[in-house]
Amino acid sequence: MRDHVKLFIPGPVEVSPDTYAAMSAPMMGHRSKDFTKLYADIQPKLQALFGTKQQTYISTSSAWGIMEGSLRNLVKKKVLNCCCGAFSDKWYDVSLRCGKQAEELKVEWGQPILAEQIAKKLATGEFDAVTLVHNETSTGVLNPLEEIAKLKQQFPDVMFIVDTVSSFTTVPMNFDALGIDVLLTGSQKAFAMPPGMALFAASEAAYARAATIADRGYYFDFLEFKANGDKSMTPSTPCIALIYGLLHQLNKFFAEGLENRYARHAKLNSMVHSWVTKHGFEFLAPEGYRSKALTCVKNNKNIDVAKFVSLLKERHKIAIDGGYGKISGKTFRISNMGDETEASISELIAALDDTLGAL
Amino acid sequence: MRDHVKLFIPGPVEVSPDTYAAMSAPMMGHRSKDFTKLYADIQPKLQALFGTKQQTYISTSSAWGIMEGSLRNLVKKKVLNCCCGAFSDKWYDVSLRCGKQAEELKVEWGQPILAEQIAKKLATGEFDAVTLVHNETSTGVLNPLEEIAKLKQQFPDVMFIVDTVSSFTTVPMNFDALGIDVLLTGSQKAFAMPPGMALFAASEAAYARAATIADRGYYFDFLEFKANGDKSMTPSTPCIALIYGLLHQLNKFFAEGLENRYARHAKLNSMVHSWVTKHGFEFLAPEGYRSKALTCVKNNKNIDVAKFVSLLKERHKIAIDGGYGKISGKTFRISNMGDETEASISELIAALDDTLGAL
Repeated sequence: MRDHVKLFIPGPVEVSPDTYAAMSAPMMGHRSKDFTKLYADIQPKLQALFGTKQQTYISTSSAWGIMEGSLRNLVKKKVLNCCCGAFSDKWYDVSLRCGKQAEELKVEWGQPILAEQIAKKLATGEFDAVTLVHNETSTGVLNPLEEIAKLKQQFPDVMFIVDTVSSFTTVPMNFDALGIDVLLTGSQKAFAMPPGMALFAASEAAYARAATIADRGYYFDFLEFKANGDKSMTPSTPCIALIYGLLHQLNKFFAEGLENRYARHAKLNSMVHSWVTKHGFEFLAPEGYRSKALTCVKNNKNIDVAKFVSLLKERHKIAIDGGYGKISGKTFRISNMGDETEASISELIAALDDTLGAL
Repeated sequence: MRDHVKLFIPGPVEVSPDTYAAMSAPMMGHRSKDFTKLYADIQPKLQALFGTKQQTYISTSSAWGIMEGSLRNLVKKKVLNCCCGAFSDKWYDVSLRCGKQAEELKVEWGQPILAEQIAKKLATGEFDAVTLVHNETSTGVLNPLEEIAKLKQQFPDVMFIVDTVSSFTTVPMNFDALGIDVLLTGSQKAFAMPPGMALFAASEAAYARAATIADRGYYFDFLEFKANGDKSMTPSTPCIALIYGLLHQLNKFFAEGLENRYARHAKLNSMVHSWVTKHGFEFLAPEGYRSKALTCVKNNKNIDVAKFVSLLKERHKIAIDGGYGKISGKTFRISNMGDETEASISELIAALDDTLGAL
């Protein structure tokens, strides 16, 4: 039996025993009344969380499925991929692999994407879609979504597709007020569920665009999601155990209160930030653009990050991340997503202190 | 709290408490050594089950994802979709939705697809791919896969894509000996796991074909699965809880012994068949083409199927299926997939007897 190492990596995050217990409810048929009841119970809660009157959808896939699906459903002319880290960069690559015309708007890893940069590109008239990762998990940058979303009014024919995988439920979200076209997320980040489920909402404009694209496929077809959603069902056999877990987690979120939840994540994030500053570390992201879900620490003190991570695991059975891809070792990342509390983050900080001292 | 209704529908099937317990192991990072170890533990077991030396893959999707993915990876010219029921018919529709040239080879629901019918079509030279559903779940027809697979020698440039969603692990499977190009299945049928995971293997010829197709995408890209599989990883964040469950179920399969497992399914299937005959019902599928995983009963006695199904649920907390789509009420379906035993099928039969008497 493998040791239980508690996860403070930026996803998958720790899954609580009560969530696993909820996932273990007796299996049901996905075309049964039991299922449509479950789906219908979840729908208004997800809508409240997304801040939308539109339908919200459950996709049996990781978020990449809907990231690719958004391209296949919505890009006819050319997509602008805003690239500021590993995941947003990859979206450009995926655009090309879907046979789409695409261009990168690229900033250095650690820097945010600014509305004015996007506006300049969209003003060329070349693009009918733009992709943005709200919280770039690899760099800990939180992009200025509200300012960027305002561009939609100026460019109404451009589809605004936003990945909120690692920000969703850590900061308030209001899909309808933002006026964007797709907002998508996954289960294994702040939802604190196992991976294997993506969630998304789409605008009327997105459905209208999709209806004009013939080769958008079936598995991620937004119009299939909509037609099935109308009947409280999913296009394909859904990840039922995760959906049981989703209802459970949603009930926890609303019992806590969404405002309290966002305040808790802000508080836990600030606790980690204080630890960073206390030890003379810096942040990769500039002030004002730092994630509330995770902290990407710049290794300005030149510690042996790999050793730090492995010692922390050895001494405390706690996992943090030693930096992603090309900034591995030059950064490290600590998550405060999910079911964590002031008590559990305090324990984490004590463990970080101890391990840093033992380096 | 919802009643526990035991599932004998042809998927999702009942999930055992020990499987749920296995799924509830502490979460792990999907780029960690813990994960690559889990993946590497599973790989040889899956290969034994598929009967292949090729890599086998875990897709975080339902089977439709890989059914669509197979089209996107492998069809350049035109695909022949063998249609003999709801799921095989739908594959044709999905081909068109992926923007592929496609043609149906259509037989009446309840009839099998014969090798000679396929041979005649392929002889036109129009096709570079063919799709077949081995066990058509909607009609209980088991198509003659071995005879059909032999055509591969005659048509080596045609990609043979086979869905074994509801036959896999109920009858022996030998991917390499069949010589076909894709064999795919899902978790919620005979594996007796929750839905949300597809499994597949692909041939060298399939990889070679995929390499010539530019817009095959990312999420279901066979070459991405291969490149990641080489490192015991998956292209996207995988459904880790289901993978824990998969290892557990595989260990159960091999502890029982594969031959014993196939014999058990044959025995349980014959018990249901005896019940059918005893009561003067008939089978939708002709002799020699009947599924070993489920029984599709022809309602030649004109019972009130909907009432039968609902009474069974009411009196015994057991669910069977009242017939799929256009043959709803004219047929009903009983599964013997998964973790069922002679004892549990005997209980089912007693409940069926009782309910039929009470109609």
